[in-house]
Amino acid sequence: MAKSKPDVIISKGLDDIIVEESTISYVDGEKGRLIYRGFDIETLAKHSNFEEVAYVVWNGDLPTKSQYEELKKQLAANRSIPGEVLSILKLLPKSTHPMDAMKAAVSALAPFDSELQDNSREANLRKSIRLTAKFPTIVSAFNRIRNGQEPIQPNHKLDHATNFLYMLSGLEPTVLAGKVMDTALVLHIEHEMNASAFACVVTASTLSDIYSAVVSGIGTLKGPLHGGANEAALKMMNEIGSPDKAEAYVLKALRERRKVPGFGHRVYKAYDPRARIFKQYVKDLSEAKESTLQYDVASKVEQVAIRELGAAKGIFPNIDFYSGIVYNLFGIPTDLFTSIFAVARVVGWAAHVMEYLEDNRLIRPRAHYVGPLERAYISIDQRQERKLAVTTLP
Amino acid sequence: MAKSKPDVIISKGLDDIIVEESTISYVDGEKGRLIYRGFDIETLAKHSNFEEVAYVVWNGDLPTKSQYEELKKQLAANRSIPGEVLSILKLLPKSTHPMDAMKAAVSALAPFDSELQDNSREANLRKSIRLTAKFPTIVSAFNRIRNGQEPIQPNHKLDHATNFLYMLSGLEPTVLAGKVMDTALVLHIEHEMNASAFACVVTASTLSDIYSAVVSGIGTLKGPLHGGANEAALKMMNEIGSPDKAEAYVLKALRERRKVPGFGHRVYKAYDPRARIFKQYVKDLSEAKESTLQYDVASKVEQVAIRELGAAKGIFPNIDFYSGIVYNLFGIPTDLFTSIFAVARVVGWAAHVMEYLEDNRLIRPRAHYVGPLERAYISIDQRQERKLAVTTLP
Repeated sequence: MAKSKPDVIISKGLDDIIVEESTISYVDGEKGRLIYRGFDIETLAKHSNFEEVAYVVWNGDLPTKSQYEELKKQLAANRSIPGEVLSILKLLPKSTHPMDAMKAAVSALAPFDSELQDNSREANLRKSIRLTAKFPTIVSAFNRIRNGQEPIQPNHKLDHATNFLYMLSGLEPTVLAGKVMDTALVLHIEHEMNASAFACVVTASTLSDIYSAVVSGIGTLKGPLHGGANEAALKMMNEIGSPDKAEAYVLKALRERRKVPGFGHRVYKAYDPRARIFKQYVKDLSEAKESTLQYDVASKVEQVAIRELGAAKGIFPNIDFYSGIVYNLFGIPTDLFTSIFAVARVVGWAAHVMEYLEDNRLIRPRAHYVGPLERAYISIDQRQERKLAVTTLP
Repeated sequence: MAKSKPDVIISKGLDDIIVEESTISYVDGEKGRLIYRGFDIETLAKHSNFEEVAYVVWNGDLPTKSQYEELKKQLAANRSIPGEVLSILKLLPKSTHPMDAMKAAVSALAPFDSELQDNSREANLRKSIRLTAKFPTIVSAFNRIRNGQEPIQPNHKLDHATNFLYMLSGLEPTVLAGKVMDTALVLHIEHEMNASAFACVVTASTLSDIYSAVVSGIGTLKGPLHGGANEAALKMMNEIGSPDKAEAYVLKALRERRKVPGFGHRVYKAYDPRARIFKQYVKDLSEAKESTLQYDVASKVEQVAIRELGAAKGIFPNIDFYSGIVYNLFGIPTDLFTSIFAVARVVGWAAHVMEYLEDNRLIRPRAHYVGPLERAYISIDQRQERKLAVTTLP
């Protein structure tokens, strides 16, 4: 019945579907432009910082000096997490993926927020600040706990990015390192209606709560098709090992029709502006750390891959191609990379939730049923024995 | 630029959008029919039970006797949760919403599953069994913990529904009570591509993991627009108080253009078949418990609301209209109702994840950007002071 309808359009992946009007960010895939609230990402990366860009993404405009100072103060004052949540992180197996630990921690944080069920924009903005403030604490605390170390208390005198690096290592980073981490966060704050932002909005659309929405975002970002590409790109640089082996590696991958990790993007058909901005920082930091091998390999891979794929197929490096190298230079373990992504992206997730709730509509698409419509129930004694479909558990 | 495109179609709520082909379930909203894998819900409610219907929803057909016994055995054997997860539940504030506790518990369970990152259908089926087995344990354990009671160990000799009631109260329920709970679970197992199932699929589509997907489902179901309607319906019955006040209450609500909780559904434009089936059980259980007031009020509300809304507007009672009364008769606190919904629905969530992954495509819709495209960055000292948009934190 349903099956025979001739006019059924299946929008698998929702590629061409527009779910809402938005004023948060815009990706011009053809020109390779990204803007947040009308401000070009290149300008923001050059002149602004994490705290200010969070303000812009949440509120739609640049803050005045006092607005900026107030948000900075609030983000610094709300970094601590309750002892119970630290205890919960300690109860998880040491092998827990950091994104799963983050999901557990944010789920457990929710009941400690007295405004949890208030879905007004004002309350959601306050919760967004509290959540954003705590993300670096969660990530660095779990990383230390799993290594048998005590978590480091946040230092409220340091800015968001610098304090994050400090809590990860226990050492205050250099000014360059702080600036590079800050830029990495700014570049990752927001990226239109991607899979994790969409998951947040789907959850929020039932009038659940912003913590639940953010937990959906974390679980969605965890997937290798979304948040995991920088791990894969770094792994490739290490596999290649030296710049002179890059060309052969890339050509072989293309012959075998394998993807080059960190290359290509569903939306960008030009050079990802974030990769263009970040590349210089990767170079600077690599030289400062006297560890340029991965950068040199990446440059060569990029050169070959752009020659083979770029103009002809619209496949260029994206931000993931370079971010893994930087995190590695910071001594951050590979399986923490997606969590760093989340530390930035929670700002965008929260912005999407707040925007969607201003004109909410429950998100409930349909599936097109193509199964049988009328099957007779046969009593269990009359059913034929078939191959056991349920596998025995370990 | 983007704003001036004349042909932009915004699919807010995704109402008319079909995201995939599915053979799991079909809702015929016009006729008021619900089928799981080709089997009518009335037939299944009458002849089958939770364990068998879970098999059908996951595997697409009725189990043979040995397949049925095997799944029943596995569901009973996997009910216990690790001590660490119990400790985590004990660390949460007693005021934690049970759905938030469930989200924290399922997030924490993930790393204890050695097959977490294996996204094969076989591994996901095994994980679905383990998750489904543990849901009643999580719900009843947290409910007892928040009341200062020790959780009750599962009794593997009892079936899924009966054991759930046993773990909630510590007392073995009557046969009728077990049957009513079993039917409630069967009716809630699956319901096409609803908001929570869709959230699961969005998360799974990045190749995250089935625990993350289910956590997204829990957070989404928590919202009052999705899982909370039975609470609202019960609250209404209690507000009305006696059958003779029902007519005036409903007419007043309609005059004031308020919704009648438990009436109407985005898809059903006829009587929800689940409500029709469940109504008789509500009556039987009410009479057995000698507590028929809520049922009598509900019957009267239904009669008036159908007269006023039914045929003319296609607004009829849905399952939520009756399920709250039953849970209340079981002595289950109102804020646990959505968790009971989740205990059943996890079966459908898992089925949707497994089906979608068989032909996966990352779900990434777009937003239509209607904000400014070119804004100049003004240095902070030159910005005018405006009203402080960031509210001071408590």
